[in-house]
Amino acid sequence: MKTAKVIYAASETDANLFYATKFLVGDPVAYIEAGRRKMLVLNDLEIGRGRDEADVDEILSLSELTKSIGKGCTMAHVIEKVVRANGASSCTVPGSFPLELADQIRARKIKVESQVGPFYPQRLLKTTPEIRAIEAAQRATEDAVHAALDVLRKSKIRGHKIYHRGEVVTSELLKRIINVSLMERNCIAKNTIVASGDQGCDPHNRGTGPIKPDQTLILDVFPRSGDSHYFADQTRTVVKGKATPAVKRLYAAVLEAQEVGIAAVRHGVNGRTVHEEVKKVFDRLGYKTEPRHGKMVGFFHGTGHGVGLDIHEAPSVGSRDSLLEAGAVVTVEPGLYYFGVGGVRIEDMVLVTRTGCRNLTKFPKALEDLEL
Amino acid sequence: MKTAKVIYAASETDANLFYATKFLVGDPVAYIEAGRRKMLVLNDLEIGRGRDEADVDEILSLSELTKSIGKGCTMAHVIEKVVRANGASSCTVPGSFPLELADQIRARKIKVESQVGPFYPQRLLKTTPEIRAIEAAQRATEDAVHAALDVLRKSKIRGHKIYHRGEVVTSELLKRIINVSLMERNCIAKNTIVASGDQGCDPHNRGTGPIKPDQTLILDVFPRSGDSHYFADQTRTVVKGKATPAVKRLYAAVLEAQEVGIAAVRHGVNGRTVHEEVKKVFDRLGYKTEPRHGKMVGFFHGTGHGVGLDIHEAPSVGSRDSLLEAGAVVTVEPGLYYFGVGGVRIEDMVLVTRTGCRNLTKFPKALEDLEL
Repeated sequence: MKTAKVIYAASETDANLFYATKFLVGDPVAYIEAGRRKMLVLNDLEIGRGRDEADVDEILSLSELTKSIGKGCTMAHVIEKVVRANGASSCTVPGSFPLELADQIRARKIKVESQVGPFYPQRLLKTTPEIRAIEAAQRATEDAVHAALDVLRKSKIRGHKIYHRGEVVTSELLKRIINVSLMERNCIAKNTIVASGDQGCDPHNRGTGPIKPDQTLILDVFPRSGDSHYFADQTRTVVKGKATPAVKRLYAAVLEAQEVGIAAVRHGVNGRTVHEEVKKVFDRLGYKTEPRHGKMVGFFHGTGHGVGLDIHEAPSVGSRDSLLEAGAVVTVEPGLYYFGVGGVRIEDMVLVTRTGCRNLTKFPKALEDLEL
Repeated sequence: MKTAKVIYAASETDANLFYATKFLVGDPVAYIEAGRRKMLVLNDLEIGRGRDEADVDEILSLSELTKSIGKGCTMAHVIEKVVRANGASSCTVPGSFPLELADQIRARKIKVESQVGPFYPQRLLKTTPEIRAIEAAQRATEDAVHAALDVLRKSKIRGHKIYHRGEVVTSELLKRIINVSLMERNCIAKNTIVASGDQGCDPHNRGTGPIKPDQTLILDVFPRSGDSHYFADQTRTVVKGKATPAVKRLYAAVLEAQEVGIAAVRHGVNGRTVHEEVKKVFDRLGYKTEPRHGKMVGFFHGTGHGVGLDIHEAPSVGSRDSLLEAGAVVTVEPGLYYFGVGGVRIEDMVLVTRTGCRNLTKFPKALEDLEL
């Protein structure tokens, strides 16, 4: 019995579908892979563009299929028809496949099973053009963070605030500078983090209000290229003004942990091992991870994640087993967060190689030197 | 038997989860609604922010639940535990619920059924703050399109190209102006369409290369606000230079069809009826919809769609039955596309009211007058 691979998704948010077809579509469409034959079912609105752009063997017309099936035709009928026409009576789908449609297809006596693990394992191992696409997005990211730090460098501390051309420097201002700079390079940044002081101690707080002098400022920027649709991801931590000795120690610890993490990355290593090496540095230096007053402090997130058509994808560099293979692109981003002291995170993207890794991030690392 | 509502998704891409929680998260999380109790399960990385920001009754700690369940704990175990602890043994999920997780929960003897129709029907009917959010995104859209048309107005035709400050005016340039202007207002535009001549005849072709003088230019802009996360949507068609008589007739036909469509919108009307009224105008004026040389020409997409936390949401204004109720925000966007002549689409967003509708779009409509 032949099994077809089926995806029903919008490739704009579903990386597997974009990977399979190289066709960008904002609303869900059906994709069927039977044997080596790749088919995309498109409505009249998308069909012209699909014929020009999609990297598939055949574009099927949704309106013609609907007409041939007749009254009461649903997407389940359409998928059933295409699957059976290709000699299959079962299909494998991604774990994210929509339940409602799966149940409707099952009701039509087609077996539907979700694939365990990555739907396209080859997505993890980047080709040269994919690596170039990630690097291009990373260069745009670096330009954008430079632009924000440039404003911070030119700004003056007066009292508990920082001023640039008479304006209070805020998270919102720096995020706007970063996001606009990225958009000028056709990279789309969402949820950029520019978080000052205690705000940075909550790693996903995106930051609001005035940047605080003499306190940690985390800038975590992860745009998607509007050209290639690949992501980049970078975090730097800086202080405008003077860092306290405690912050300097925190920064040195995170930097050391990151260096240890990067040194541990190579083909064949378990991501969990890299994560454990990073944790050992913090343990040795006495930085505890624990809840305090109902909030976690210390190092309470993974060391890193794969980056590609998804911002978070396999392999993982955290507490789960996950094999790092040559060609994978992963972040190494340890952090330490203590309310009242500050939050520090430093993140590079590295390409796993046979003998170690190649750092795709060129942005310098310095806590107080904004001349970068 | 009590039934819980369960969502497992990232609220950044899942509007139902954002609607339920007002909490923005980029990676999937579990949300359980039992009776009137709303619960969100968050990992250590998100839990602090969740406690501050999420509009739910309780934040449950994923790490504590995992510890209490013990070795081999999966998300299915976690959801089962929370569902049973709230006295339920079945759950209703959105149609988009991930199949893999649904099957795992079912294997644990919890019934999982996807809801037919909208998961939160109240999402269709916008409150005053929601309407204001859509209008704010629309004002930013209008500013952005003004900025692009301003460049076009100041540009000069030389031969078959258009020049602005010595640079050839391209789709890419105008898209960059629009997208950067929107980003300056914290609105994120993706897939903005600036499509000239025959490119505009494929309604989802986003446009590339030089803008052609004396030909139709479609500008379709639909950003999402980074503040409210609501969308706006607008399309205008212009000609830089002189429109041919055929293009002028095309434009007049689409404008008339749009006016007829808008006039047909009111509480209690079927979206399909509005769509049919629009089609009648084109039929009466003799504009045929048909395939020619393997591509569709005429009017071959729906008249409109709901707009809110999703760019395309219910109700629809197309060939399917879909009730328009007071409070819904829908687009009215007829178009005509003929290769060799041009593509014209005009799109406003309207708020359905008891007696008709209120147009949320203020941008003027004119084919050749770029002085707008």
